[in-house]
Amino acid sequence: MSNPVSERGFEPARHAELALLLEVAGTPKPGNVDRRRDLSGLCFEHFLTGAVGSAAGLRLAEDGAPVGEAFETAVAGMSKQGGGNTQFGCLLLLVPLVKAAVAGDLSPEGATRAAEATTVDDAVSFYRAFEHVDVAVGDPPGDASDLDVRRGSEAESALRAEGLTLSDIMELSAERDANAREWTGGFARTFRAAESILNDEGPVTDRVARAFIDLLTEEPDTLVVTNHGEDVARDVMDRAASVSDLDEAETLAEEFVAEGINPGTTADIVCAATFVALERGVPL
Amino acid sequence: MSNPVSERGFEPARHAELALLLEVAGTPKPGNVDRRRDLSGLCFEHFLTGAVGSAAGLRLAEDGAPVGEAFETAVAGMSKQGGGNTQFGCLLLLVPLVKAAVAGDLSPEGATRAAEATTVDDAVSFYRAFEHVDVAVGDPPGDASDLDVRRGSEAESALRAEGLTLSDIMELSAERDANAREWTGGFARTFRAAESILNDEGPVTDRVARAFIDLLTEEPDTLVVTNHGEDVARDVMDRAASVSDLDEAETLAEEFVAEGINPGTTADIVCAATFVALERGVPL
Repeated sequence: MSNPVSERGFEPARHAELALLLEVAGTPKPGNVDRRRDLSGLCFEHFLTGAVGSAAGLRLAEDGAPVGEAFETAVAGMSKQGGGNTQFGCLLLLVPLVKAAVAGDLSPEGATRAAEATTVDDAVSFYRAFEHVDVAVGDPPGDASDLDVRRGSEAESALRAEGLTLSDIMELSAERDANAREWTGGFARTFRAAESILNDEGPVTDRVARAFIDLLTEEPDTLVVTNHGEDVARDVMDRAASVSDLDEAETLAEEFVAEGINPGTTADIVCAATFVALERGVPL
Repeated sequence: MSNPVSERGFEPARHAELALLLEVAGTPKPGNVDRRRDLSGLCFEHFLTGAVGSAAGLRLAEDGAPVGEAFETAVAGMSKQGGGNTQFGCLLLLVPLVKAAVAGDLSPEGATRAAEATTVDDAVSFYRAFEHVDVAVGDPPGDASDLDVRRGSEAESALRAEGLTLSDIMELSAERDANAREWTGGFARTFRAAESILNDEGPVTDRVARAFIDLLTEEPDTLVVTNHGEDVARDVMDRAASVSDLDEAETLAEEFVAEGINPGTTADIVCAATFVALERGVPL
């Protein structure tokens, strides 16, 4: 029998699920769980389970549900494992990107359109998603404590009183959260990293790991800023910049794990970039 | 905010997809691709993609489609990656188990009922599945060349003329294929390995790896028999039996990869066992 050649490529929701898997499989991604490295209480298998659990919410996004509802459903499914927050930030980026892909315009403009179409209901769902899992976040500005995401659904009346959409919430968070900045800035880093994955060579998981290092050199990881402060986050950038290949990144991975440094926001962005690369036909 | 505790567990089709992921993540599984080891041209990411691609077929099985249709759809989706056959054998075991789970009787009896309910149409679909991907199989007995699975859909008239169901085909293959023996023998090794996974401790992927070694000591792996003959398969059993923990299994994994020995049928059975363990609540 001849060697059959199958048509490649999946629908957007399955590409998003696959992006979650390829992201965590990419190794080394210094400071993050990957296929060779677990953190204390947070293991590779929690991420596999989180990815499969997210699929129903991602499918909702593909089927036309609002961003907030799809995101909350994805987070609820993701949380059905014992590791805690595995892919909250990834999903926050993936859901509008899935909607842009379904609308046939997976571009900075299309993703921005999906983001700006969000409503107050989407904001309420976003807040409710924090009830499914503990997410590391910083304190809100002093005058915005009624909008602290840690209030979960208790923030609903404040959101409705002020008429804040999910896009508005991302504007308010953009200064201290790199994922929110993707929302408000046309997913610029996501699309740039997607092109670097597409133009790279070798297994996709290696491309993911190299894209992660590149992103880490660009800006302070905002999860590291939240947990360790701006100086440590700047030091992480410098150390990433000194790495010239994946072998050297192995050493950095050991160091970051030992120091408790987890550049998780950068991993979120590389996951989103992997989704875009899959949609654009990166070969698997 | 208090630490939220989510309800765990998914529907059967998602557990089946997760079993595909946990199986390939389990390391070391000597001679097989796992999260630490690729084979030539067959990489970890092909298995991740194969698992996600299988999901639509597994969902069909959950939704009541016939075993053959669900299996062929799963194999077609699995094949949308460049590594070739990643999980054909796993899916052959998972589909009837998903149907048994949906029927509320995931037991040797329930799985046997799902197997024995198959029809000639299921057999035709099974043969057609071989057109999506190259599967390593031995020659059929001399008097059964019109039923060679490598004929794909060309075998349809022979199947219909002889009125052979998929269960009948498994009976004919049971002597030389351990997966077919699961079908005809109440999935005995699957359910036994599931209990060992459930009664084990630690991360599920470690439990999977230990269950793999145990299964490998029990019987000759029939893929090894097909590719290297009975003597090599017996030697593989002996060498697996000499391994006392996962550290020692690392050495065996290096050896088997170097020798081109791939006990893939044993990996199929441990995947099926992982599905049963997930359905029975193994903690993740």
